[in-house]
Amino acid sequence: MATPSPQAAHLLATPDDVEAQFYEALREADIGKLMAVWSDDDDIVCVHPGGPRVTGAPAIRASFEAIFERGGIPVQTDQVQRLRSLDAAVHNLVEAVAIASAEGVQQAYVVATNVYLKTALGWRLVAHHASPGSALPPRDTADALTTLH
Amino acid sequence: MATPSPQAAHLLATPDDVEAQFYEALREADIGKLMAVWSDDDDIVCVHPGGPRVTGAPAIRASFEAIFERGGIPVQTDQVQRLRSLDAAVHNLVEAVAIASAEGVQQAYVVATNVYLKTALGWRLVAHHASPGSALPPRDTADALTTLH
Repeated sequence: MATPSPQAAHLLATPDDVEAQFYEALREADIGKLMAVWSDDDDIVCVHPGGPRVTGAPAIRASFEAIFERGGIPVQTDQVQRLRSLDAAVHNLVEAVAIASAEGVQQAYVVATNVYLKTALGWRLVAHHASPGSALPPRDTADALTTLH
Repeated sequence: MATPSPQAAHLLATPDDVEAQFYEALREADIGKLMAVWSDDDDIVCVHPGGPRVTGAPAIRASFEAIFERGGIPVQTDQVQRLRSLDAAVHNLVEAVAIASAEGVQQAYVVATNVYLKTALGWRLVAHHASPGSALPPRDTADALTTLH
């Protein structure tokens, strides 16, 4: 077997490193880099803002390939909160996405939960759940509750 | 110390048991039962459909108390997908919520990710992230992607 590439070695590091690679891949529209951060478990799951859930690597790849047809996503992360166990890391963060509009570039905000598990190949992403953005930075409050729960 | 109550003993079981108790508490508007399923970690996080993130037990309790003022939530769960590690469980599922309207009772659907960690007190919920519902049952496809990602 060949020497592991720098990209693969990168995956052996921390959940923060895997997360950084995930968002780099989004910005660069790099489908190979993006898919490398996911676990090879059949039940990995991805919920895009306002979308249904997408399960498994082939469907997740297809969903991002469709997105990347429009280019990379100008996204920056902020307000990362971390929970850890021995072999799991749960991150909740705010994604700030620059949206070009007739009024110029505006920021939209997405709340995302990313879950990483420690696998034989290192830390890998197993779940990415993103909620629809708003024009205002999300606040850590109990405002804006809906009637659903 | 008193003998553990049946409710506390229940928490020592499986992530599925904790999840069942969470949704029972939602249906019954039982704030005590609801808060008992959460970890005592300061960084537990809850994202209600369409809402901001809510961090920590006091704020999460306040958010559910506000919801429970309107009564319990007629919610049923379906299509549960599970990922496991030694001390973490990641569930993605569909919540079907009965909504009373002028046209009668209708179902709204929410996609939720629930993350459980194994603590000294048993399995506990550390993250609940729910996406806004729709009038149609979510499908496991890559449809309906937004421009955010």
